[in-house]
Amino acid sequence: MDISTAAASAKSASLRLAAVGTAEKNRALEAIADALEDNGSDIVAANEQDLENGRESGLAAPLIKRLKFDRKKLFAALDGIRSLVELPDPVGRVLSARELDHGLDLYKVSCPIGLIGVIFESRPDALVQISTLCLKSGNAVLLKGGSEAAHTNRILASTIAQASEASGIPPGWLQLAETRADVDRMLKMDDHIDLLVPRGSNEFVRHIMENSSIPVLGHADGVCHVYVDAQADAGMAVDIAVDGKCQYVAVCNALETLLVHAGVAETFLPAAKAALEERGVQLRGCERTRAIIDAEPATDADWKTEYLDLILSIKVVESLDEAVGHINTHGSGHTDAIVTADAGAAERFMDGVDSGNVFWNCSTRFSDGYRYGLGAEVGISTAKIHARGPVGLEGLVIYKWKLKGTGQIVAPYADGTRSFTHRPLNGR
Amino acid sequence: MDISTAAASAKSASLRLAAVGTAEKNRALEAIADALEDNGSDIVAANEQDLENGRESGLAAPLIKRLKFDRKKLFAALDGIRSLVELPDPVGRVLSARELDHGLDLYKVSCPIGLIGVIFESRPDALVQISTLCLKSGNAVLLKGGSEAAHTNRILASTIAQASEASGIPPGWLQLAETRADVDRMLKMDDHIDLLVPRGSNEFVRHIMENSSIPVLGHADGVCHVYVDAQADAGMAVDIAVDGKCQYVAVCNALETLLVHAGVAETFLPAAKAALEERGVQLRGCERTRAIIDAEPATDADWKTEYLDLILSIKVVESLDEAVGHINTHGSGHTDAIVTADAGAAERFMDGVDSGNVFWNCSTRFSDGYRYGLGAEVGISTAKIHARGPVGLEGLVIYKWKLKGTGQIVAPYADGTRSFTHRPLNGR
Repeated sequence: MDISTAAASAKSASLRLAAVGTAEKNRALEAIADALEDNGSDIVAANEQDLENGRESGLAAPLIKRLKFDRKKLFAALDGIRSLVELPDPVGRVLSARELDHGLDLYKVSCPIGLIGVIFESRPDALVQISTLCLKSGNAVLLKGGSEAAHTNRILASTIAQASEASGIPPGWLQLAETRADVDRMLKMDDHIDLLVPRGSNEFVRHIMENSSIPVLGHADGVCHVYVDAQADAGMAVDIAVDGKCQYVAVCNALETLLVHAGVAETFLPAAKAALEERGVQLRGCERTRAIIDAEPATDADWKTEYLDLILSIKVVESLDEAVGHINTHGSGHTDAIVTADAGAAERFMDGVDSGNVFWNCSTRFSDGYRYGLGAEVGISTAKIHARGPVGLEGLVIYKWKLKGTGQIVAPYADGTRSFTHRPLNGR
Repeated sequence: MDISTAAASAKSASLRLAAVGTAEKNRALEAIADALEDNGSDIVAANEQDLENGRESGLAAPLIKRLKFDRKKLFAALDGIRSLVELPDPVGRVLSARELDHGLDLYKVSCPIGLIGVIFESRPDALVQISTLCLKSGNAVLLKGGSEAAHTNRILASTIAQASEASGIPPGWLQLAETRADVDRMLKMDDHIDLLVPRGSNEFVRHIMENSSIPVLGHADGVCHVYVDAQADAGMAVDIAVDGKCQYVAVCNALETLLVHAGVAETFLPAAKAALEERGVQLRGCERTRAIIDAEPATDADWKTEYLDLILSIKVVESLDEAVGHINTHGSGHTDAIVTADAGAAERFMDGVDSGNVFWNCSTRFSDGYRYGLGAEVGISTAKIHARGPVGLEGLVIYKWKLKGTGQIVAPYADGTRSFTHRPLNGR
């Protein structure tokens, strides 16, 4: 199917899917999990073909690893779908209710967004996860996966579409795009696609963000900071720095830059250096850092770099304000932490840093939908509107205003013969 | 000041403004109202100069009317500011609170968006209203008004900036752009401007939406429908159609297209024609409409046209589904109503119509922030994310996640030696 036809078909299905009830959506999710399990051998075989093609064409080892969709990954995906069934439906929640006048009641009710465009690189598990998140939240989805995973994506998408449609979900709600040209056209489809969710490398996400006027839910960089305040417990600060940098180095909420108040630099930096170098971390410091400990010199480029590697930049600052200014200038609005015993300083830091996640006395690695207890994670957003930080299912819904009257017209309110009561209904 | 410098200055001020407390913002709003009142003579004199220039350059009468900022409009603006003081602060609200583990508490807290770019045509009252809404919600603002109102805008902006800054608001939070080239540059400033709020004609708003990758809060068209269902009370439907079309013809929530179920067309249409033509409304109908009543023939273009005039298009449909399909195809996602005695049909209509405002048995003219009881209206949005329909102050805020720990690192949770409690705090 041509991409325009596919998008129009998905958009049309989205309008019917918006009215499908919770029980029906949950039944469809269970049917999807069962069908994926039943088709397990074919899915794994399709993936083995993609893996073989990938090895033949010389795909790098980390890409092969991401491309892999074996029984273990399949079972993890099935667990994900089955726990999604247990989550409350994000659609149909009454967010506020107000009587405007007797017999004229206004309800603000959550509803699906419409058609979500999902563009991801080679990980096939992303296809399963995001399409079932879209279904649970009543959205249609137009998917474009990496061409390396073409066979796997095709069988996953057709299994999900068939099982859900047999279970009563409006046909056409899930569409698969396959070519690079399709992506370029998707980025311009602001008449059909309501939200883009890109998954992949920083460069990939940045390309999507810069080339579409459709809103994007996601993040490109994660340049995360820990600021060690004048009143920091040095031991706690070392533990938080080591965890942030080393616990999982290749992720967006890993620590990239350490900011150290001049008043604690002499005691903190040698302890931090010992602990970090023990784990193989290479340090890059500003002049003042290098006057206290041995480190490579940091350049201006370091302050904006997401290493995703065992490298850490360090800067000594004179004040909390300087730290906040540095973060707001060089950071990416992802996750930034302060270590301090001073509650007032912590509040100033958390109010002043313009990031989706602002932490006090804990590791930046906590910014994650699972750790936050969101139940399911759509992604982490560094946008400034709609949804920020780890985004659960609520990032895939919006609301509409339902006004239920008994024949009211505006004229008598406009000429003053009637007036509004504006009374909350049911305490909302 | 150059527009880039102005934007950078406002962005920088926005970071400090985010931490300013409610009492301080309210004091500044009162200071602004007092200063505008004190400068009333100079403001009215500046406006008279704009009006004179406008008349000399042959500005059309409706534009002159919008340009006018006399004592009456000034007092209305002052009332608006003083009632804004009474509204609750949208910033700092705890939207959810969850214990992740003992001594590790997560708070989702509302916060300002940052720098709002406001682009409006010739109405100077829009400058006062939107800049004070931004201040109340802790946002900095970069304003570009119509060049016809240059003198009025300058004195209003400088009065507001001086009074608020003297009252302790971070300097630079309000900036005024003046040239058309500035607008083009604002549309590209996605590094500084977080949200655009355009106010003006449909063409103007559409131009802004189509030429910027910055999110836009607003609406271009308002092609609103009333669907008269098979189970409609014909008298109620006539009243709602007349009010929707005639109560105020030049506004976005006015009725433009009437959809009539075939089963009631024979009784409803003659009654509607009589009532509408009595008020001077010209009717344009589909073939089936014209088989029942006299009307001009409607073309395909009519179904997508916002007349903003005493013209109404009418189409006979076979079913509720056809009505919903017509609205989702030709409407603008603004406000659409059903008239019916059948509650099930009403729910199907309200769930199926993909508009920000979906009404049952009342006039489309109710979709308005004041009538909804929002307290202050930022605008009406037809976007599908962030904020939809009439938008109050909450459309100018987003949230950040504050995580308050006591030294926690992720490692023990990742290796399974500790687990999360994920317990709601204070019932939220």
